[in-house]
Order: sequence, then structure tokens, then C-alpha cells
Amino acid sequence: MVTMQDVADRAGVSLTTVSFVVNGTKRVAPATRGRVEAAMADLGYRRNVLARALASRRSHIVALVFPALQHRLGSTALSIVTAAASAATERGFNVVLWPVDDVAQLDDYLSGGLVDGVLLMEVTADDPRVALLTEREVPFGLIGRTDDPTGPSFVDMDFAGMVTTGLDHLTDLGHRRVALLLGDPGGPAWSGYGPVVRTEQAYLAESARRGLEPLVVRAGQDPRSGRRAATALAADHADVTGVMVLDEAALSGFVNGLVAAGRAVPDDVSVLALATSAADVATADPAVSAVVAPGSELGTRAVHGLVERLADPAAPPLHVLLPGTLELVGSTAAPR
Amino acid sequence: MVTMQDVADRAGVSLTTVSFVVNGTKRVAPATRGRVEAAMADLGYRRNVLARALASRRSHIVALVFPALQHRLGSTALSIVTAAASAATERGFNVVLWPVDDVAQLDDYLSGGLVDGVLLMEVTADDPRVALLTEREVPFGLIGRTDDPTGPSFVDMDFAGMVTTGLDHLTDLGHRRVALLLGDPGGPAWSGYGPVVRTEQAYLAESARRGLEPLVVRAGQDPRSGRRAATALAADHADVTGVMVLDEAALSGFVNGLVAAGRAVPDDVSVLALATSAADVATADPAVSAVVAPGSELGTRAVHGLVERLADPAAPPLHVLLPGTLELVGSTAAPR
Repeated sequence: MVTMQDVADRAGVSLTTVSFVVNGTKRVAPATRGRVEAAMADLGYRRNVLARALASRRSHIVALVFPALQHRLGSTALSIVTAAASAATERGFNVVLWPVDDVAQLDDYLSGGLVDGVLLMEVTADDPRVALLTEREVPFGLIGRTDDPTGPSFVDMDFAGMVTTGLDHLTDLGHRRVALLLGDPGGPAWSGYGPVVRTEQAYLAESARRGLEPLVVRAGQDPRSGRRAATALAADHADVTGVMVLDEAALSGFVNGLVAAGRAVPDDVSVLALATSAADVATADPAVSAVVAPGSELGTRAVHGLVERLADPAAPPLHVLLPGTLELVGSTAAPR
Repeated sequence: MVTMQDVADRAGVSLTTVSFVVNGTKRVAPATRGRVEAAMADLGYRRNVLARALASRRSHIVALVFPALQHRLGSTALSIVTAAASAATERGFNVVLWPVDDVAQLDDYLSGGLVDGVLLMEVTADDPRVALLTEREVPFGLIGRTDDPTGPSFVDMDFAGMVTTGLDHLTDLGHRRVALLLGDPGGPAWSGYGPVVRTEQAYLAESARRGLEPLVVRAGQDPRSGRRAATALAADHADVTGVMVLDEAALSGFVNGLVAAGRAVPDDVSVLALATSAADVATADPAVSAVVAPGSELGTRAVHGLVERLADPAAPPLHVLLPGTLELVGSTAAPR
């Protein structure tokens, strides 16, 4: 194995100078740096990531923290994870996955000192992990957000804006009775789960503002639960002519269930999905129009924000809300 | 911050002894080790993962390598990733995600020396990454496998066995014309993609052995492509009474498409999915019977195999084929 001493001998400089170049710990004159880098190239010297990390106190590793057990991650979560890994790669970072279910476990991970920073997924309104990361002075960002709008950096989908876009579309078509179907992860750990809470709040407020009578329906996060919700809705609420659906997993079953219950889409009921991906709108069967909010951009922007924070710890927190875009593929129409 | 010297002073031992305990680099008498560990606990000393990694030449990090661009990962891939992360956690390892599209990029990652070992996802028949890892002498395992059955360690689903199980079930019901629908990722990079190749080969061989005329249908990996395949199949091959489907993404659209084309499931056509998850069988809508092969076990077993290899580099390669289990929820029946 080629050592730093070999590089120093070849370049005719001291070992300390090579260390400065390799670890980026001190400025080295360009001509000297060039000699060192040429010697490294000639000898095939390879920087050791761990040695550099220890020397610079920067591992260039960030952690993506998600719940291991409580929640079956959906396709949006997958696109967030893969986009985050790609964005980190482009910035010279590695992403480690931390499947962590409680604060004590997260603290144990943090104590190892492996990562430069942390991104939290599946954030709740009063997320206890935020307090821990703040106390431990670990740079971090949220994918999603707490109910504190002035708090730490976050990148989130603009659920309230998507509700407004969806209601505008359906009321412009003439609908006066628009229900909201929420895919609910269930269980006490998810009582303050951001997407569900924010979508419901915005829907209730916007319905009141427009003089519409609200109807919130809950379903489990899978297709068969979606079908059951459709069966119940068709039986109990024949006056509903439009439904907005927040849950990509329940969506197809919900539409199949409406049709099976004799409610044609969109002739009898218009269906509009909230916060699905453009890929789903382009390929799902049955086809469902949506207010699209790409998960991949969420992952990319969150990584960029964290990398910038690591470069400048004094930067103010960054709060990004990604808007949704209405994409219509025929599941909405004027009511009969 | 508490240093190793503080621990040494408290325990009344030398700094070297503390280092042996912390880094596991040399055996220390149990009584002495107990004193050192008590001192670490009293003082709140925390091991630094990076320092320990550098000292022991073990980072306790393994990489999960998957293609970043060519392929939209499905729900099975997600369950593999999350299960691998959880299994690694339990063994004291971290998992980094490497979204890597070519061998040169993988080599660049490896050169950093960050990881102790590598797991490859989405393996092709003659995967060039295998040659690179072998040459670099990096411990690795495959999730999936190449066409070399005596090669490096792998954990794969037993696609041939699943085909046999599926054909047994359908021919026992009396079907004599059973088609195979393959969700094809498409593109030259996937020409030797293991699941597709192995399933097709087994289907053709098993059909011949049973005197059945085979029919292979290809679809893109999404619901709408599944629907198109169903429409074409219903129009061109009215004699087909059974279909096995290898693609979780195309499946729901395929069944919806059959029904829309006037072919009732299972009355006119029996549909059996191959290699989906038990969760999908339990929750999918429309409900489809399947030969189930859980992705989470694939991720768990692959991590365990790699960790064991790291502990004993001389161990022979481990070749694991996970069998599928027939789970029936009503989408198959005797032909009319």
C-alpha cells in the first residue's frame, strides 16, 4: 500500500504538507499542492475516507432516519430515499439509513459520531427527535415538519396549498359536496403525523370558507382498505359527487370500489388524488387525476439544504414548501 | 469531552489497556475489562465510531449498491432495503446506500475504503460489478445472482421453484393453456436481469415437460402497461385460461384490464402472481393469489451472510434460494 510518506518522498515535501493536502486541513501553495497531487496520481495513492474523516472531523456521511416498524413506507418514501442518496453522491456525501423507532435509539446512534448531519423522515407535529438533535448540536433538517413554522430547517410538501388547488378545481366544475379520504397510518405514534393533520385542517378551513359541508373519511393505507371506504361512502353518502384522496396506497382500491358499488368515475363521482407522484399519474390503473408533488425533489432539496448548512453552520434555517401541480387524466368532470 | 486518558486514570490502568478494550484490538483480562467498562460508564465516555474504525480497520459499515437511474424500484426493493438496514442495525452495522450506475463509479466509491463489505442489488446474469469486487478483494454478497451457481455468496428468490409451484396449482385445477406475463424493465442494461431470465427459462422448460404450449407476454413495469397487455391477450388469445404474472407493478392493471375486456377473474381467466409479498396478497385490490416470496427476508439474510463473511473471511460462499409459498385469495379456479 502507498503511504503518505511515499507521496512526500516522491513530491519532495514534508509529510505534514501531504497531510494538509490530503485532509484539506490547511492551505497549501498551489504549486506545492500540484506537486503533491501529481505524486499521488503517479503512485496510485488513494485517500482513505476514514482517515480523512478523523483528521478533518468531517465524515461526509449524513443519516436518513426513518421509523423501522410503525409504518409501511410507500412509493413516495422510496423516491425520497433514492433521490436523497443520489443528491448526496453528487455532493461527495454518503447516506446511511438509520431505521430508528425511539429517541433513545437515535441518541445511541448519534453518540458514535459517525455522521456530520441528520435528515428526519416521517416527522410528527411535536417530534421528540427534534429536541434531541437540537440538544446534541447535530446539524439536521426535516423532510416534513413539526408544528413550529419558525423552527429548524425543513423541506415539506405544501399540503394546504394542494387542498386549495384541489377544491378550486372541483368547485369550478360545479361540485358542492366534496369529501376528503385520509389514509391514516393509525396508532398513537402517528397522532400528529404532518401530512394527515395539515391536509385535514386545510380541508376543514377551506370548506368552511366556501360554505361547503365537509366530510372526512378515514381508511387504512392499502388498496383493500380503500375499497371498503368506497363501499361505505357509496352506501351512506350518495350526495357526495367529488372526493379528494390523500393516500397513494388506498387510491386504486378506492376507485375500484366506487365502480363496483355502481358509482361511475367520473360520471357519478369525481376523484382527485393529493400528493401522488407524476409517475403514478402517468401509469396508474385506474387512471386518477392528481395534485402532484414529487417525492424525489423533497429528497434532493433536503440533502442540498443540509450540505449547505454543514458548509455554513451560521446560516439561518431554510423552510421550503414544495407546491403541487394539477395533472388531469380524466377522473374528474362536472357533476350530473 | 471525556478522553481515553480520563478513563485510564479512573480505572487505574494504562491508556494502552483502555485502547485495547475500546477498539477490541487485543484481549484484556475480564476483571480489567470490567474496571475499564465501569469507568467508561461512570464518566459517560463514548466510543467514537470513526476512531475505532480507523484503529481496527473495520468501519462496521456495509454498502447497499443499486442502480440509480435505469430502473424504478418497486415495493419489493423497498422492503429489501429497509429489512437490510434493520438487520444491519441489530448486528452493530450501518448501511450506506450507493446509487451507482457503472463499474467505474463503483470503483471510485470502493477506493475511499469506507465500507467493510458490499451487497449488490438488481444483479444481472454476467454482472460486471462482481468481477470488480472480486479483483478489489472486497467482501461482498449478491441479492439475486449471476448465471454462475458456484460463484460468490448470494441470496435469491427461487424463481424456477415458484414457476413449478404455480404451474402445479393451475394444471391441478385443469388448466391446459397457461400464459406467462413478464414485467420487463427494458433496455440493454437489463438484458440479463435474473428474475425475468430465470422465470422465463423455467416456464418454457416446465411447459415443455408437461406438454403445454407456452405463451410469453411482455409488459412494462406499471399498471397501465399491465392493462394494455390484458387487452391484447383477451383479443388475441381467447384460449388462454390461466396467467402467471411476474411483476407487482403491472399486476393490478392487468387484472382490471381483463375484467374490462369482459374476461372475468377467475371465472374466465385464473390469475396467479409470482414473487409478490405476503402484504400485497393480504391488501391488494383486486385481490390476486400468489406464490409469495418476501423481500424483507432477502434483505435480512443477505446482511447476515455478509456479516458472517466479515467475521470469517475463509468461510465458503453461501448460496441461499428462498422458496415461494402459495397463498390463495380467490383469483384462481377450475377453467370453464
